Amino acid sequence: QLTDVLLSLENIEDPKDLTEKPLAGKTVLLTAGPTREAIDPVRYITNRSSGKMGYAIASAAQNMGAKVILVSGPVALEAPNGVERHLVESAKEMHAKTLSLADKADIFIATAAVADYSPANIADQKIKKSEDDLSLKLAYNPDILFDVSHQFPNLFSVGFAAETEHLVEHAKAKMQRKKLDMIVANHVGANKAFDKDTNQVEIIVKDGDHDKQISIPEMDKSELAFKIMNVIAENA
Amino acid sequence: QLTDVLLSLENIEDPKDLTEKPLAGKTVLLTAGPTREAIDPVRYITNRSSGKMGYAIASAAQNMGAKVILVSGPVALEAPNGVERHLVESAKEMHAKTLSLADKADIFIATAAVADYSPANIADQKIKKSEDDLSLKLAYNPDILFDVSHQFPNLFSVGFAAETEHLVEHAKAKMQRKKLDMIVANHVGANKAFDKDTNQVEIIVKDGDHDKQISIPEMDKSELAFKIMNVIAENA
Repeated sequence: QLTDVLLSLENIEDPKDLTEKPLAGKTVLLTAGPTREAIDPVRYITNRSSGKMGYAIASAAQNMGAKVILVSGPVALEAPNGVERHLVESAKEMHAKTLSLADKADIFIATAAVADYSPANIADQKIKKSEDDLSLKLAYNPDILFDVSHQFPNLFSVGFAAETEHLVEHAKAKMQRKKLDMIVANHVGANKAFDKDTNQVEIIVKDGDHDKQISIPEMDKSELAFKIMNVIAENA
Repeated sequence: QLTDVLLSLENIEDPKDLTEKPLAGKTVLLTAGPTREAIDPVRYITNRSSGKMGYAIASAAQNMGAKVILVSGPVALEAPNGVERHLVESAKEMHAKTLSLADKADIFIATAAVADYSPANIADQKIKKSEDDLSLKLAYNPDILFDVSHQFPNLFSVGFAAETEHLVEHAKAKMQRKKLDMIVANHVGANKAFDKDTNQVEIIVKDGDHDKQISIPEMDKSELAFKIMNVIAENA
Protein backbone atom coordinates (compact mmCIF):
# COMPACT_ATOMS: atom_id res chain seq x y z
CA GLN A 1 0.00 0.00 0.00
CA LEU A 2 1.06 3.57 -0.72
CA THR A 3 0.40 4.60 2.88
CA ASP A 4 2.73 1.90 4.19
CA VAL A 5 5.51 2.94 1.84
CA LEU A 6 5.27 6.58 2.84
CA LEU A 7 5.18 5.66 6.49
CA SER A 8 8.35 3.60 6.28
CA LEU A 9 10.05 6.19 4.10
CA GLU A 10 9.37 9.05 6.43
CA ASN A 11 9.63 7.19 9.75
CA ILE A 12 6.31 8.56 10.87
CA GLU A 13 5.10 6.69 13.94
CA ASP A 14 1.50 7.86 14.06
CA PRO A 15 -0.37 7.50 10.74
CA LYS A 16 -2.68 10.30 11.91
CA ASP A 17 0.24 12.72 11.48
CA LEU A 18 0.35 11.97 7.77
CA THR A 19 -3.22 13.10 7.21
CA GLU A 20 -2.39 16.38 9.02
CA LYS A 21 0.54 17.20 6.72
CA PRO A 22 -1.36 18.54 3.68
CA LEU A 23 1.64 20.63 2.64
CA ALA A 24 4.23 17.82 2.70
CA GLY A 25 6.52 18.19 -0.30
CA LYS A 26 5.54 21.85 -0.83
CA THR A 27 7.82 24.82 -0.34
CA VAL A 28 6.28 27.98 1.10
CA LEU A 29 8.09 31.29 0.64
CA LEU A 30 6.95 34.03 3.05
CA THR A 31 7.77 37.65 3.70
CA ALA A 32 7.10 39.08 7.17
CA GLY A 33 7.62 42.09 9.39
CA PRO A 34 8.14 45.76 8.54
CA THR A 35 10.90 47.24 6.43
CA ARG A 36 13.17 50.12 7.43
CA GLU A 37 13.87 52.85 4.86
CA ALA A 38 16.96 54.84 5.80
CA ILE A 39 16.80 58.64 5.76
CA ASP A 40 20.39 58.97 7.03
CA PRO A 41 22.70 56.76 9.16
CA VAL A 42 20.42 57.06 12.20
CA ARG A 43 16.90 57.94 11.01
CA TYR A 44 14.46 55.78 9.10
CA ILE A 45 10.84 55.35 8.08
CA THR A 46 9.07 52.18 9.22
CA ASN A 47 5.62 50.96 10.28
CA ARG A 48 3.84 49.30 13.19
CA SER A 49 4.05 45.71 11.88
CA SER A 50 5.30 43.35 14.59
CA GLY A 51 5.73 40.37 12.22
CA LYS A 52 3.55 38.25 14.55
CA MET A 53 1.01 37.27 11.87
CA GLY A 54 3.69 36.30 9.34
CA TYR A 55 5.70 34.31 11.86
CA ALA A 56 2.54 32.50 13.00
CA ILE A 57 1.80 31.58 9.37
CA ALA A 58 5.39 30.40 8.85
CA SER A 59 5.03 28.21 11.92
CA ALA A 60 1.63 26.84 10.80
CA ALA A 61 2.95 26.03 7.29
CA GLN A 62 5.92 24.27 8.86
CA ASN A 63 3.61 22.22 11.11
CA MET A 64 1.49 21.29 8.08
CA GLY A 65 4.53 19.68 6.46
CA ALA A 66 5.85 22.44 4.19
CA LYS A 67 9.44 23.50 3.83
CA VAL A 68 9.29 27.16 4.84
CA ILE A 69 11.58 29.97 3.67
CA LEU A 70 11.02 33.25 5.53
CA VAL A 71 12.31 36.62 4.34
CA SER A 72 11.92 38.89 7.35
CA GLY A 73 12.34 42.57 8.16
CA PRO A 74 13.54 43.68 11.62
CA VAL A 75 11.31 42.12 14.31
CA ALA A 76 11.67 41.07 17.94
CA LEU A 77 10.80 37.43 17.14
CA GLU A 78 12.85 34.23 16.93
CA ALA A 79 12.72 32.19 13.71
CA PRO A 80 10.26 29.27 14.17
CA ASN A 81 12.07 25.95 14.56
CA GLY A 82 13.09 24.44 11.22
CA VAL A 83 12.24 27.56 9.21
CA GLU A 84 14.96 28.95 6.92
CA ARG A 85 15.10 32.67 7.74
CA HIS A 86 16.75 35.46 5.74
CA LEU A 87 16.93 38.82 7.57
CA VAL A 88 16.69 42.04 5.54
CA GLU A 89 16.14 45.74 6.35
CA SER A 90 14.87 47.75 3.40
CA ALA A 91 12.12 47.08 0.84
CA LYS A 92 14.77 46.90 -1.90
CA GLU A 93 16.70 44.24 0.05
CA MET A 94 13.50 42.28 0.69
CA HIS A 95 12.58 42.53 -3.02
CA ALA A 96 15.97 41.22 -4.19
CA LYS A 97 16.12 38.40 -1.63
CA THR A 98 12.54 37.27 -2.27
CA LEU A 99 12.87 37.22 -6.08
CA SER A 100 16.12 35.24 -5.77
CA LEU A 101 14.28 32.55 -3.78
CA ALA A 102 10.94 32.47 -5.65
CA ASP A 103 11.85 29.73 -8.14
CA LYS A 104 12.21 27.26 -5.24
CA ALA A 105 8.67 27.84 -4.00
CA ASP A 106 5.19 26.44 -4.73
CA ILE A 107 3.33 28.96 -2.60
CA PHE A 108 4.21 32.60 -1.96
CA ILE A 109 2.66 34.44 0.99
CA ALA A 110 3.40 38.15 1.28
CA THR A 111 2.62 39.12 4.88
CA ALA A 112 5.33 41.78 5.20
CA ALA A 113 4.29 45.40 5.63
CA VAL A 114 6.67 46.65 2.96
CA ALA A 115 7.29 50.38 2.69
CA ASP A 116 5.72 51.71 -0.52
CA TYR A 117 8.15 54.61 -0.59
CA SER A 118 11.69 55.23 0.58
CA PRO A 119 13.74 58.43 0.77
CA ALA A 120 14.99 59.24 -2.73
CA ASN A 121 18.45 60.01 -1.36
CA ILE A 122 20.05 58.51 1.73
CA ALA A 123 22.27 61.08 3.44
CA ASP A 124 25.82 59.82 4.16
CA GLN A 125 26.03 61.84 7.35
CA LYS A 126 23.37 62.62 9.91
CA ILE A 127 21.27 65.52 8.60
CA LYS A 128 21.90 68.58 10.77
CA LYS A 129 18.93 70.30 12.29
CA SER A 130 18.02 73.77 11.08
CA GLU A 131 15.17 76.07 11.94
CA ASP A 132 13.64 75.62 8.51
CA ASP A 133 10.95 73.14 7.70
CA LEU A 134 12.03 70.72 5.05
CA SER A 135 10.71 68.28 2.56
CA LEU A 136 11.71 64.66 2.26
CA LYS A 137 11.61 63.45 -1.34
CA LEU A 138 10.27 59.91 -1.48
CA ALA A 139 10.66 57.45 -4.35
CA TYR A 140 8.39 54.55 -5.20
CA ASN A 141 9.78 51.18 -4.05
CA PRO A 142 9.75 48.03 -6.18
CA ASP A 143 6.55 45.99 -5.66
CA ILE A 144 7.58 42.56 -4.34
CA LEU A 145 4.15 40.92 -4.59
CA PHE A 146 3.46 42.27 -8.09
CA ASP A 147 6.88 41.20 -9.38
CA VAL A 148 6.73 37.71 -7.86
CA SER A 149 3.20 36.96 -9.12
CA HIS A 150 3.98 38.25 -12.63
CA GLN A 151 7.45 36.70 -12.98
CA PHE A 152 6.44 33.39 -11.38
CA PRO A 153 2.85 32.79 -12.61
CA ASN A 154 2.89 29.14 -11.50
CA LEU A 155 3.24 30.12 -7.86
CA PHE A 156 0.07 30.23 -5.76
CA SER A 157 0.42 33.86 -4.64
CA VAL A 158 -1.26 35.14 -1.49
CA GLY A 159 -1.36 38.80 -0.50
CA PHE A 160 -2.38 40.63 2.63
CA ALA A 161 -4.30 43.89 2.61
CA ALA A 162 -4.10 46.06 5.70
CA GLU A 163 -6.70 48.75 5.25
CA THR A 164 -8.11 51.56 7.36
CA GLU A 165 -11.32 51.82 5.25
CA HIS A 166 -13.32 50.06 2.46
CA LEU A 167 -11.75 46.75 3.44
CA VAL A 168 -13.13 44.22 0.92
CA GLU A 169 -13.32 46.69 -1.96
CA HIS A 170 -9.67 47.73 -1.58
CA ALA A 171 -8.59 44.11 -1.09
CA LYS A 172 -10.33 42.90 -4.27
CA ALA A 173 -8.78 45.71 -6.29
CA LYS A 174 -5.35 44.80 -4.95
CA MET A 175 -5.96 41.12 -5.74
CA GLN A 176 -6.75 41.89 -9.38
CA ARG A 177 -3.96 44.47 -9.84
CA LYS A 178 -1.36 42.10 -8.42
CA LYS A 179 -2.69 38.94 -10.10
CA LEU A 180 -3.16 37.06 -6.81
CA ASP A 181 -4.82 33.72 -6.15
CA MET A 182 -5.92 34.77 -2.69
CA ILE A 183 -5.92 37.79 -0.42
CA VAL A 184 -6.31 38.14 3.35
CA ALA A 185 -7.77 41.50 4.34
CA ASN A 186 -7.80 43.09 7.77
CA HIS A 187 -8.55 46.44 9.32
CA VAL A 188 -5.63 48.41 10.75
CA GLY A 189 -5.33 51.62 12.73
CA ALA A 190 -5.27 52.54 16.40
CA ASN A 191 -5.56 49.31 18.47
CA LYS A 192 -6.13 47.14 15.41
CA ALA A 193 -4.00 44.25 14.15
CA PHE A 194 -0.47 45.67 14.36
CA ASP A 195 1.32 44.93 17.64
CA LYS A 196 -1.68 42.91 18.78
CA ASP A 197 -1.96 39.16 19.45
CA THR A 198 -5.37 38.74 17.80
CA ASN A 199 -6.71 39.57 14.37
CA GLN A 200 -9.98 39.38 12.42
CA VAL A 201 -9.83 38.87 8.66
CA GLU A 202 -11.77 38.43 5.44
CA ILE A 203 -10.27 35.90 3.01
CA ILE A 204 -11.00 36.23 -0.71
CA VAL A 205 -10.03 33.31 -2.95
CA LYS A 206 -10.03 33.36 -6.75
CA ASP A 207 -12.46 30.73 -8.00
CA GLY A 208 -12.52 30.86 -11.81
CA ASP A 209 -14.43 33.97 -12.78
CA HIS A 210 -15.85 34.35 -9.29
CA ASP A 211 -14.37 35.11 -5.89
CA LYS A 212 -15.11 33.17 -2.72
CA GLN A 213 -15.22 35.22 0.45
CA ILE A 214 -14.57 33.65 3.84
CA SER A 215 -15.05 35.67 7.04
CA ILE A 216 -12.95 34.64 10.02
CA PRO A 217 -13.90 36.11 13.42
CA GLU A 218 -11.38 37.73 15.78
CA MET A 219 -9.06 35.10 17.21
CA ASP A 220 -5.50 34.52 18.36
CA LYS A 221 -2.98 35.04 15.54
CA SER A 222 -1.51 31.52 15.86
CA GLU A 223 -4.98 29.93 15.59
CA LEU A 224 -5.85 32.25 12.71
CA ALA A 225 -2.59 31.27 10.97
CA PHE A 226 -3.76 27.62 10.81
CA LYS A 227 -7.15 28.69 9.40
CA ILE A 228 -5.45 30.76 6.70
CA MET A 229 -2.99 27.97 5.86
CA ASN A 230 -5.89 25.50 5.63
CA VAL A 231 -7.61 27.69 3.03
CA ILE A 232 -4.30 27.93 1.14
CA ALA A 233 -3.73 24.15 1.29
CA GLU A 234 -7.25 23.51 -0.03
CA ASN A 235 -6.87 25.93 -2.94
CA ALA A 236 -3.18 25.82 -3.93
CA GLN B 1 25.88 63.19 64.87
CA LEU B 2 24.28 63.90 61.54
CA THR B 3 25.61 60.66 60.07
CA ASP B 4 24.01 58.63 62.86
CA VAL B 5 20.65 60.30 62.38
CA LEU B 6 20.62 59.64 58.66
CA LEU B 7 21.63 56.03 59.21
CA SER B 8 18.78 55.40 61.59
CA LEU B 9 16.31 57.28 59.42
CA GLU B 10 17.12 55.35 56.29
CA ASN B 11 17.83 51.96 57.89
CA ILE B 12 21.11 51.68 56.05
CA GLU B 13 23.18 48.84 57.48
CA ASP B 14 26.53 49.57 55.89
CA PRO B 15 27.75 53.16 56.47
CA LYS B 16 29.86 52.79 53.30
CA ASP B 17 26.59 52.86 51.37
CA LEU B 18 25.91 56.38 52.55
CA THR B 19 29.15 57.73 51.11
CA GLU B 20 28.24 56.11 47.78
CA LYS B 21 24.89 57.95 47.60
CA PRO B 22 26.17 61.32 46.37
CA LEU B 23 22.79 62.05 44.78
CA ALA B 24 20.66 61.41 47.88
CA GLY B 25 17.94 64.06 48.08
CA LYS B 26 18.33 65.02 44.43
CA THR B 27 15.75 64.45 41.72
CA VAL B 28 17.02 63.49 38.28
CA LEU B 29 14.71 63.93 35.28
CA LEU B 30 15.76 61.91 32.20
CA THR B 31 14.53 61.43 28.67
CA ALA B 32 15.45 58.21 26.85
CA GLY B 33 14.82 56.17 23.73
CA PRO B 34 13.69 57.22 20.25
CA THR B 35 10.49 59.03 19.35
CA ARG B 36 7.98 57.96 16.70
CA GLU B 37 6.59 60.60 14.34
CA ALA B 38 3.39 59.39 12.68
CA ILE B 39 3.01 59.74 8.92
CA ASP B 40 -0.39 58.02 8.92
CA PRO B 41 -2.08 55.42 11.19
CA VAL B 42 0.52 52.75 10.33
CA ARG B 43 3.70 54.47 9.14
CA TYR B 44 6.14 56.55 11.14
CA ILE B 45 9.62 58.03 11.18
CA THR B 46 11.95 56.90 13.96
CA ASN B 47 15.64 56.25 14.64
CA ARG B 48 17.99 53.49 15.77
CA SER B 49 18.12 54.49 19.45
CA SER B 50 17.58 51.46 21.70
CA GLY B 51 17.27 53.51 24.90
CA LYS B 52 20.00 51.38 26.54
CA MET B 53 22.29 54.30 27.40
CA GLY B 54 19.46 56.35 28.94
CA TYR B 55 18.09 53.43 30.93
CA ALA B 56 21.59 52.61 32.21
CA ILE B 57 21.98 56.23 33.37
CA ALA B 58 18.56 56.13 35.04
CA SER B 59 19.62 53.00 36.87
CA ALA B 60 23.00 54.49 37.87
CA ALA B 61 21.36 57.69 39.17
CA GLN B 62 18.90 55.59 41.16
CA ASN B 63 21.76 53.54 42.66
CA MET B 64 23.56 56.76 43.59
CA GLY B 65 20.59 57.79 45.71
CA ALA B 66 18.62 60.08 43.39
CA LYS B 67 14.89 60.02 42.84
CA VAL B 68 14.65 59.31 39.11
CA ILE B 69 11.85 60.35 36.74
CA LEU B 70 12.21 58.83 33.27
CA VAL B 71 10.31 60.08 30.21
CA SER B 72 10.77 57.33 27.62
CA GLY B 73 9.95 56.76 23.98
CA PRO B 74 9.06 53.25 22.71
CA VAL B 75 11.82 50.80 23.70
CA ALA B 76 12.09 47.09 24.45
CA LEU B 77 13.33 47.73 28.00
CA GLU B 78 11.75 47.43 31.43
CA ALA B 79 11.75 50.45 33.72
CA PRO B 80 14.62 50.12 36.25
CA ASN B 81 13.37 49.24 39.72
CA GLY B 82 12.13 52.26 41.67
CA VAL B 83 12.28 54.60 38.68
CA GLU B 84 9.12 56.58 37.87
CA ARG B 85 8.58 56.04 34.13
CA HIS B 86 6.30 57.99 31.78
CA LEU B 87 5.90 56.42 28.31
CA VAL B 88 5.41 58.68 25.29
CA GLU B 89 5.55 58.25 21.50
CA SER B 90 6.14 61.50 19.63
CA ALA B 91 8.58 64.36 20.18
CA LYS B 92 5.64 66.66 20.95
CA GLU B 93 4.38 64.27 23.63
CA MET B 94 7.88 63.95 25.11
CA HIS B 95 8.25 67.75 25.10
CA ALA B 96 4.96 68.33 26.93
CA LYS B 97 5.54 65.57 29.50
CA THR B 98 9.13 66.62 30.22
CA LEU B 99 8.30 70.32 30.66
CA SER B 100 5.43 69.41 33.00
CA LEU B 101 7.88 67.50 35.24
CA ALA B 102 10.92 69.81 35.07
CA ASP B 103 10.10 71.93 38.12
CA LYS B 104 10.44 68.84 40.33
CA ALA B 105 14.02 68.16 39.20
CA ASP B 106 17.52 69.27 40.20
CA ILE B 107 19.28 67.63 37.28
CA PHE B 108 17.99 67.15 33.75
CA ILE B 109 19.65 64.59 31.45
CA ALA B 110 18.42 64.48 27.85
CA THR B 111 19.54 61.12 26.45
CA ALA B 112 16.54 60.61 24.14
CA ALA B 113 17.11 60.61 20.38
CA VAL B 114 14.26 63.01 19.72
CA ALA B 115 13.10 63.47 16.13
CA ASP B 116 14.05 66.96 14.93
CA TYR B 117 11.23 66.89 12.39
CA SER B 118 7.84 65.28 12.11
CA PRO B 119 5.40 65.07 9.19
CA ALA B 120 3.62 68.40 8.89
CA ASN B 121 0.28 66.64 8.42
CA ILE B 122 -0.68 63.25 9.83
CA ALA B 123 -3.01 61.45 7.40
CA ASP B 124 -6.23 60.17 9.03
CA GLN B 125 -6.29 57.13 6.77
CA LYS B 126 -3.47 55.01 5.42
CA ILE B 127 -1.99 56.83 2.42
CA LYS B 128 -2.78 54.83 -0.72
CA LYS B 129 0.09 53.86 -2.95
CA SER B 130 0.36 55.46 -6.36
CA GLU B 131 2.98 55.17 -9.07
CA ASP B 132 4.09 58.76 -8.50
CA ASP B 133 6.99 59.74 -6.34
CA LEU B 134 5.94 62.02 -3.55
CA SER B 135 7.23 64.46 -1.09
CA LEU B 136 6.73 64.36 2.64
CA LYS B 137 6.52 67.83 4.16
CA LEU B 138 8.32 67.89 7.49
CA ALA B 139 7.89 70.48 10.24
CA TYR B 140 10.42 71.41 12.89
CA ASN B 141 9.68 69.82 16.29
CA PRO B 142 9.85 71.69 19.61
CA ASP B 143 13.34 71.47 21.17
CA ILE B 144 12.99 69.77 24.56
CA LEU B 145 16.54 70.38 25.77
CA PHE B 146 16.57 74.03 24.67
CA ASP B 147 13.21 74.74 26.29
CA VAL B 148 14.04 73.00 29.58
CA SER B 149 17.45 74.67 29.98
CA HIS B 150 16.03 78.13 29.13
CA GLN B 151 12.80 77.86 31.13
CA PHE B 152 14.46 76.17 34.13
CA PRO B 153 17.89 77.86 34.38
CA ASN B 154 18.52 76.50 37.89
CA LEU B 155 18.52 72.92 36.62
CA PHE B 156 21.90 71.30 35.90
CA SER B 157 21.19 70.41 32.26
CA VAL B 158 23.06 67.65 30.49
CA GLY B 159 22.77 66.95 26.78
CA PHE B 160 23.93 64.15 24.52
CA ALA B 161 25.34 64.71 21.06
CA ALA B 162 25.25 61.78 18.66
CA GLU B 163 27.36 62.79 15.69
CA THR B 164 28.63 61.09 12.56
CA GLU B 165 31.45 63.66 12.06
CA HIS B 166 33.30 66.56 13.81
CA LEU B 167 32.35 65.14 17.21
CA VAL B 168 33.73 67.63 19.74
CA GLU B 169 33.20 70.70 17.54
CA HIS B 170 29.50 69.86 16.97
CA ALA B 171 29.04 68.96 20.64
CA LYS B 172 30.50 72.25 21.90
CA ALA B 173 28.32 74.24 19.52
CA LYS B 174 25.25 72.35 20.76
CA MET B 175 26.29 72.95 24.38
CA GLN B 176 26.47 76.72 23.84
CA ARG B 177 23.32 76.97 21.70
CA LYS B 178 21.27 75.03 24.24
CA LYS B 179 22.81 76.63 27.35
CA LEU B 180 23.95 73.31 28.85
CA ASP B 181 26.14 72.66 31.87
CA MET B 182 27.53 69.48 30.37
CA ILE B 183 27.39 67.45 27.17
CA VAL B 184 28.21 63.81 26.43
CA ALA B 185 29.30 63.30 22.82
CA ASN B 186 29.56 60.02 20.94
CA HIS B 187 30.03 58.86 17.37
CA VAL B 188 27.07 57.18 15.67
CA GLY B 189 26.57 55.43 12.36
CA ALA B 190 26.85 51.85 11.13
CA ASN B 191 27.88 49.61 14.07
CA LYS B 192 28.35 52.56 16.42
CA ALA B 193 26.51 53.30 19.67
CA PHE B 194 22.88 52.68 18.67
CA ASP B 195 21.64 49.15 19.33
CA LYS B 196 25.02 48.28 20.84
CA ASP B 197 25.92 47.39 24.45
CA THR B 198 29.10 49.47 24.59
CA ASN B 199 29.85 53.11 23.93
CA GLN B 200 32.82 55.48 23.87
CA VAL B 201 32.26 59.13 24.75
CA GLU B 202 33.80 62.56 25.23
CA ILE B 203 32.39 64.55 28.14
CA ILE B 204 32.57 68.34 28.08
CA VAL B 205 31.74 70.21 31.30
CA LYS B 206 31.25 73.95 31.60
CA ASP B 207 33.84 75.35 34.00
CA GLY B 208 33.38 79.11 34.22
CA ASP B 209 34.65 80.57 30.98
CA HIS B 210 36.47 77.37 30.09
CA ASP B 211 35.36 73.85 29.22
CA LYS B 212 36.78 70.71 30.77
CA GLN B 213 37.00 67.73 28.41
CA ILE B 214 37.02 64.17 29.76
CA SER B 215 37.62 61.22 27.37
CA ILE B 216 36.10 57.91 28.40
CA PRO B 217 37.27 54.80 26.51
CA GLU B 218 34.87 52.24 25.02
CA MET B 219 33.14 50.29 27.76
CA ASP B 220 29.89 48.62 28.69
CA LYS B 221 26.97 51.09 28.77
CA SER B 222 26.08 50.28 32.40
CA GLU B 223 29.67 50.92 33.54
CA LEU B 224 29.82 54.07 31.41
CA ALA B 225 26.56 55.25 32.96
CA PHE B 226 28.18 55.30 36.43
CA LYS B 227 31.17 57.25 35.09
CA ILE B 228 28.86 59.83 33.51
CA MET B 229 26.73 60.10 36.66
CA ASN B 230 29.89 60.56 38.75
CA VAL B 231 30.92 63.52 36.61
CA ILE B 232 27.41 64.93 36.96
CA ALA B 233 27.40 64.42 40.75
CA GLU B 234 30.77 66.19 41.05
CA ASN B 235 29.68 69.19 38.98
CA ALA B 236 25.95 69.60 39.65
